[in-house]
Amino acid sequence: MSDFQSWASAHQLRFEDVLKNLLPQPELAPRRLHSAMRYSVLEGGKRVRPLLSFAAGELAGADLQRVDLVAAAVEMIHAYSLVHDDMPCMDDDVLRRGKPTCHVEYDEATALLVGDSLQSLAFQLLSEHTLSDDPLIQLQMVKLLAVASGSRGMAGGQAFDLDSVGKQLSVPELEFMHIHKTGALIRAAILLGVHCGNRLDTAQIAKLDHFGKCVGLAFQVVDDVLDAEADTATLGKTAGKDADNDKPTYVTLLGVTQAKKMSADLHAEAMDSLSTFGAGALRLRELADFIIIRKY
Amino acid sequence: MSDFQSWASAHQLRFEDVLKNLLPQPELAPRRLHSAMRYSVLEGGKRVRPLLSFAAGELAGADLQRVDLVAAAVEMIHAYSLVHDDMPCMDDDVLRRGKPTCHVEYDEATALLVGDSLQSLAFQLLSEHTLSDDPLIQLQMVKLLAVASGSRGMAGGQAFDLDSVGKQLSVPELEFMHIHKTGALIRAAILLGVHCGNRLDTAQIAKLDHFGKCVGLAFQVVDDVLDAEADTATLGKTAGKDADNDKPTYVTLLGVTQAKKMSADLHAEAMDSLSTFGAGALRLRELADFIIIRKY
Repeated sequence: MSDFQSWASAHQLRFEDVLKNLLPQPELAPRRLHSAMRYSVLEGGKRVRPLLSFAAGELAGADLQRVDLVAAAVEMIHAYSLVHDDMPCMDDDVLRRGKPTCHVEYDEATALLVGDSLQSLAFQLLSEHTLSDDPLIQLQMVKLLAVASGSRGMAGGQAFDLDSVGKQLSVPELEFMHIHKTGALIRAAILLGVHCGNRLDTAQIAKLDHFGKCVGLAFQVVDDVLDAEADTATLGKTAGKDADNDKPTYVTLLGVTQAKKMSADLHAEAMDSLSTFGAGALRLRELADFIIIRKY
Repeated sequence: MSDFQSWASAHQLRFEDVLKNLLPQPELAPRRLHSAMRYSVLEGGKRVRPLLSFAAGELAGADLQRVDLVAAAVEMIHAYSLVHDDMPCMDDDVLRRGKPTCHVEYDEATALLVGDSLQSLAFQLLSEHTLSDDPLIQLQMVKLLAVASGSRGMAGGQAFDLDSVGKQLSVPELEFMHIHKTGALIRAAILLGVHCGNRLDTAQIAKLDHFGKCVGLAFQVVDDVLDAEADTATLGKTAGKDADNDKPTYVTLLGVTQAKKMSADLHAEAMDSLSTFGAGALRLRELADFIIIRKY
């Protein structure tokens, strides 16, 4: 196991316990809702956003207990968005990370309330503990997550996505959509980790924000390439499920070759944003590799 | 028009403009989402919660501009809950305040995102402007709204409501449900108005919180009585739609006479909580009358 893999799995393992403690306990009423909230958050995914918070927090000299809380808040928002996106009126998915989706395992009404409650919990986590020595900065952190989650952030990106079905988007329009849908929360994960510490100045924080923007966009470009190539190779189709669903992707707009070039360019730009940090940004570099140079 | 009616309609009129300015403008992208958010919040209802914030804020010597923002945050949460509750997987309502519900006028996916985005907007409003001279108190205000909205507040009450269909609840269980479903946000509206000012001490704030608890519960008891009596009178049925939907109500559990006595007792208890405030609590008393002694 590489040094990065050890770092990541140690954080993933520890963070699972953090989430278990921060989510409402299953014996607390209303039990079915709390059980469904835990089902939707725990044992889920690679925790990419929390890992970005941890790496950014390390760089900023932040206390790990504070970073745990902001990482958990971001993960609650991410988890709520998956629960709502999977619902029949949105993507109508029945499986998520190999398990039945929340509305299948429980019911639609519960899934709706799970998402709503996870969003409230995120803002509770950002407000009930000390996360910055300066409470005014902590209020800015609340605002940062609210904007990243709302109609000019993640939820807005989702609305663009709905509107784009069957439409011919330009590359800038597609970029606009993904910067909101995926990018906003990835940037928030990094910035919230940074604001738990006080070692970085405004110019450095701007560099990290640009890093987050590049990584967030590359994440989506890579997704599109993998979707197209996996289907082509494994299903013998020339295009992936996004194209079948009549959704514009970087592959349908640019072709696989240009899309791959775009992700490589974004990777280089992300790395360039970290150049001023030296060895302190090692984990962020490794995370960029992990997110952009992946096979699934 | 009584002095109270003038006060209330002046605030309602002014507050409509406040909401119009705080909601994302309809020409801002994503337009359909922003249009649907405005549709779901504007021209809606009696603004009971904001009026409670205004009255409590007056008593606490709060700056009106600050109270406008907390009242708007509470109203965004209330409006999101109505949009989600009306969806087919919840109450499946097609009309709200005489207009088609959000998912009927737009579509279900948009309604889901409208609710999600309104919740984010509420927390943005509580964090992006100065609402208290002490930023630590403002962080407590964020927490207060998060808890009141989440799984141990409004959303949790809704989950209890779902679980209660077809079940025989006890009066304490029914009270527990309504204290969460309706009461939590009514109490938050009052406390957030109070925290915008600094004229009240802890004991006085506790009195106002108890006032909010009584008014919130009485609100629901009166709803149940009106539902049962309106149906009995106008539809010739002996019980209202809640009973038909097999939902436990104060009327089904206690009978109309005892339910009316309960609302009168809560009204008296609410008034009693205000006794220390003298003339300064006039508007709160009038609002208690407005909420509890109503005909529809």
